[in-house]
Amino acid sequence: MALETSTPQELLELEKDGRAERTKWVLSAPDPPSLWRELMDLVLPEGRTLPSLVKNCGFKPLVWFQALFPILCWSRNYTARKFRNDLLAGLTLASLCIPQSIGYATLARLDPQYGLYTSVVPPLIYAVMGTSREIAIGPVAVVSLLLASMVQKVENPVENPDAYRNLVLTTTFFVGIFQAISGLFRLGFLVDFLSHSAVVGFMAGAAIIIGLQQLKGLLGLTHFTNKTDIISVLKATWISVHHSWNPLNCILGCSFLCFILITRFVGKKKKKLYWLPAMAPLISVILSTLIVYLTRADKHGINIIKHIKRGLNPSSIHQLQFHDSRTMDAAKIGIVVAVVALAEALAVGRSFASIKGYRIDGNKEMIAMGIMNTLGSFSSCYVATGSFSRSAVNFSAGCETAMSNIVMSITVIVSLELFTKLLYFTPTAILASVILSALPGLVDLNEAYKIWKIDKLDFLACIGAFTGVLFVSVEIGLLVAVTVSFLKIIITTIQPGIEVLGRIPGTEIFCNVDQYPMAIKSNPVLVLRFRSGLICFANANFVKEKIMKLVTEDQEDGNTKHNGKISVQLVILDMSNLVNIDTSGIASLQELHKNLISNGIELAFVNPRWQVIHKLKLANFVEKIRGKVFLTVEEAVDACLNAKISTI
Amino acid sequence: MALETSTPQELLELEKDGRAERTKWVLSAPDPPSLWRELMDLVLPEGRTLPSLVKNCGFKPLVWFQALFPILCWSRNYTARKFRNDLLAGLTLASLCIPQSIGYATLARLDPQYGLYTSVVPPLIYAVMGTSREIAIGPVAVVSLLLASMVQKVENPVENPDAYRNLVLTTTFFVGIFQAISGLFRLGFLVDFLSHSAVVGFMAGAAIIIGLQQLKGLLGLTHFTNKTDIISVLKATWISVHHSWNPLNCILGCSFLCFILITRFVGKKKKKLYWLPAMAPLISVILSTLIVYLTRADKHGINIIKHIKRGLNPSSIHQLQFHDSRTMDAAKIGIVVAVVALAEALAVGRSFASIKGYRIDGNKEMIAMGIMNTLGSFSSCYVATGSFSRSAVNFSAGCETAMSNIVMSITVIVSLELFTKLLYFTPTAILASVILSALPGLVDLNEAYKIWKIDKLDFLACIGAFTGVLFVSVEIGLLVAVTVSFLKIIITTIQPGIEVLGRIPGTEIFCNVDQYPMAIKSNPVLVLRFRSGLICFANANFVKEKIMKLVTEDQEDGNTKHNGKISVQLVILDMSNLVNIDTSGIASLQELHKNLISNGIELAFVNPRWQVIHKLKLANFVEKIRGKVFLTVEEAVDACLNAKISTI
Repeated sequence: MALETSTPQELLELEKDGRAERTKWVLSAPDPPSLWRELMDLVLPEGRTLPSLVKNCGFKPLVWFQALFPILCWSRNYTARKFRNDLLAGLTLASLCIPQSIGYATLARLDPQYGLYTSVVPPLIYAVMGTSREIAIGPVAVVSLLLASMVQKVENPVENPDAYRNLVLTTTFFVGIFQAISGLFRLGFLVDFLSHSAVVGFMAGAAIIIGLQQLKGLLGLTHFTNKTDIISVLKATWISVHHSWNPLNCILGCSFLCFILITRFVGKKKKKLYWLPAMAPLISVILSTLIVYLTRADKHGINIIKHIKRGLNPSSIHQLQFHDSRTMDAAKIGIVVAVVALAEALAVGRSFASIKGYRIDGNKEMIAMGIMNTLGSFSSCYVATGSFSRSAVNFSAGCETAMSNIVMSITVIVSLELFTKLLYFTPTAILASVILSALPGLVDLNEAYKIWKIDKLDFLACIGAFTGVLFVSVEIGLLVAVTVSFLKIIITTIQPGIEVLGRIPGTEIFCNVDQYPMAIKSNPVLVLRFRSGLICFANANFVKEKIMKLVTEDQEDGNTKHNGKISVQLVILDMSNLVNIDTSGIASLQELHKNLISNGIELAFVNPRWQVIHKLKLANFVEKIRGKVFLTVEEAVDACLNAKISTI
Repeated sequence: MALETSTPQELLELEKDGRAERTKWVLSAPDPPSLWRELMDLVLPEGRTLPSLVKNCGFKPLVWFQALFPILCWSRNYTARKFRNDLLAGLTLASLCIPQSIGYATLARLDPQYGLYTSVVPPLIYAVMGTSREIAIGPVAVVSLLLASMVQKVENPVENPDAYRNLVLTTTFFVGIFQAISGLFRLGFLVDFLSHSAVVGFMAGAAIIIGLQQLKGLLGLTHFTNKTDIISVLKATWISVHHSWNPLNCILGCSFLCFILITRFVGKKKKKLYWLPAMAPLISVILSTLIVYLTRADKHGINIIKHIKRGLNPSSIHQLQFHDSRTMDAAKIGIVVAVVALAEALAVGRSFASIKGYRIDGNKEMIAMGIMNTLGSFSSCYVATGSFSRSAVNFSAGCETAMSNIVMSITVIVSLELFTKLLYFTPTAILASVILSALPGLVDLNEAYKIWKIDKLDFLACIGAFTGVLFVSVEIGLLVAVTVSFLKIIITTIQPGIEVLGRIPGTEIFCNVDQYPMAIKSNPVLVLRFRSGLICFANANFVKEKIMKLVTEDQEDGNTKHNGKISVQLVILDMSNLVNIDTSGIASLQELHKNLISNGIELAFVNPRWQVIHKLKLANFVEKIRGKVFLTVEEAVDACLNAKISTI
């Protein structure tokens, strides 16, 4: 390098020193945490090791106890005014809950009282342990459908109703156990594996399937299919309608369905009448029961519920089957149902918590749900979770705490003790109307449109889940959704490609020239960036070939056209967005380096992340490219071009 | 803002203008290419649309023709000197190829002549169409094993040898078709789905399995198992050894194996004797045949090959079965074999091309392989591909072009016509020795250690493939390898986590404070970066919770301890490494924004990439955070804090 006057030279030296220092920083980064350590970080709370965690818990039993039972915290500030609000919300909730519970029990192919049982024990336990204030616990449509469609493949609910019920209770036990374990071991992220878009499609498909199932009650059919897919159900309906159906059932059901829908419309228009749509199902039940009782319409072909067992939840501990060949089936079904139930509950809880501006702890929620379902399975309850429709009613009725669930539970207890006889003449068509009226809330066309607009591949997961549920079965729909979601991750990650970067005027930042058309390419230097966050076996070779193509095209341009363009002398790979690299990726980079060197082109890396620089060092690649690793593109350009000039 | 003297104020304004301009650039980026367009980019050559491609091809038939038949290019500069080298290499190659071909045919459970047939037609076609100069085409051990282990599940090779052979030929036809299609539609990346580490494990496992299969020939056993896993084979060997085995076979085989291995050792020590290890198998065959012939040892229990059909490849077009129920099976097996064969050929081709400093075109290679296997299936050849061991011999024998393959092919033709009778007394134990001697090259312990050192998860794929092949079956080994490789991608991608960034002294670049301990955190501002390149349903919620935890912990620290620390006022998310985001990710960011706002904290995004800013705009999120999207962290800090000061 030519000698200049002292001061700029000194400045240059100083600048060079700083640069050399920074390059050293890049290369001398401490080792990143090991795989094992990262895995433990996921499972254990942030920054705590297992021993220290045990120690901490051991020293603060009170804190631990309060964390497990949030009721101990909020009950201290509980006031009479709050109770008034909760009482009102709880009663409104109960009026919606009783007809829905009976309806969902028939959807789960259980006797009606099991729906009511499930609205007693789980809400009480959740109120003590849960962190959400608005969620309404009890049986829900989608889980009832899923449970029935999976358990009836193992045991026939018509031929062996007792064995079927025992299997459902055993499954409920496993659901509770899996949920509690997920909460304890902080496996909450497993629930996130059901992506939002998949849930939207799944819910919409399930809603249509549930609606179709109601054709049986609404048309008063006696023969019906066990399958849930739309084609089987429509075929079965078509055949049954030709054999035997009673128009009275249909008229009764449809007129009350209209009534419920009209009250909902009114309730939406006038916010003060929020209680009207919530009470409408109960009013329909009472009115229709009265009509049937007075006209004795059951003798003219109207199907009625008949006997509902009176009295509180009986114990069901001895009905759980653990020594049976079907216990494994129950456990398998339990995993699927546990995930779906948690996904619904957490989605409900989070959405209302976000409206009210507080946060709920996913892992604590899962423990609460797990214990409530486990204890529920001991007391004749089937799987309970947070209901979309009832939580919304609870919220708009102005609930303040989980006390509204307690109020609801007590109301259901009273009904079980006193009013079961009154439900003898309740027509089954009304139950169908109650269920049907809750379904539109599960189909979210707006959200589906939004997903389509923002992310086409997400929409594919959504539509996959929808068609899977609709045309095959509920489980296949779930499977399709999960598969598409994960395929999407793989496709997005391994998407090969390379971006040419240019300097943004006025800054030292280098950006994609396609995204920023004003960015300036520096000619003898080709600054590139990977389009994916992971260079691995699936895209490394493609990317390497693409870089070589870019370089050789550029060289040929420079050689053949002689238009004053200087051919590439230096390729700089900006690695700042590269989260990880595998051995195939490193091998491809090494091949790239060889190819470039044989073309007389240098290669430099910029800003590699922790894992990347660690692996490059382990593979001795840093030595091979003679330490050409820099912190910024600017520094890489300066250092490499200066070195080139000084060698000439 | 307080009024100051004019000049700094003006400068500030100017600076602010530039900043505002740059922020506008971020927000007004053109739309990124659509999903469809990106997909087409993968399949079609860079920057060309389908119509223009057709037009280009239509106008330049000569270029197209030359591209399809590279021999037209290199034959023009072909000299006598080159031919001398190729002749030498081709003859060396043939001497190794003949015994190996016969051995691999028995490994594929076909008559010996089929191995020789496969060394005639495919090498000729490849020489005309292929782009690699060193690759030696013919039957290879791993593909023979894979083919036999899969086809014999459909058809028994002992009971119906003709039907089995027809099925093998039909499978070969499908292999060729699939390979050609992959090449035509530029699906070469599919071959990359067998990751390097998986191939290392798979090859090592397959080598051991192949070695175990040779116990039959080496011990002269008559009864043997059809299964390939280590336990079945050892068991079958144990049982057979008790019944009937002949020590003469073993002595003959082992002594010639020692001879081959010693020549290899000598060849490695003295580079000039490179031909010795290559000739050793042929020498062994000739010597052992002579010994058996002279001593009539076949009457004392030495197993010999006996009859090999004389004459050139017969046509086998009428033996292909397309109207059979097993045609689908053949097609399925064809896909798996096609991928494995291509993976081996491309790995071989690329490694030698990289040594000699030229590049081979993966898609053209695939078309060449496809056509050679399709035409091969018409002329009694089974699946041929590039052999590791023979290509290495070809390379060290100094081959210059694919002409060496032609020389080899002609030599094999001559042998088929003249020398098949001489092979009558060749002992099968020698074939076992020839195969065994080629196996050590397939087990690459060094590479396995390197993989372990660099990437533990990659090693898992490697060891998974190895144990799968060894203990279950060849297909299961492949399946395990592919599954583990893709699970690895998912795990690496959705790995949730957040990094706190600090400014590197002397620069304006912000880096992970764990990686760069000298980085300085700016206190009222929390600069964060995602640890993954994709925020999606599987990690979005986890990341959101973690950010909220970081923020609230920081706030609590500030509130309770009063140690002069200022609590967080601004959270800046550096999105420069975020390649993509899905609807769940956007929903989580929106929730995060709501939560932060309710805590009085602002949120700003920095340097979002193309897809990300596009989706944020589509979701109206940019409006919601009031355009707080900046190009650099520095600008975000300045803009947000200035705005805050001016509102106070």
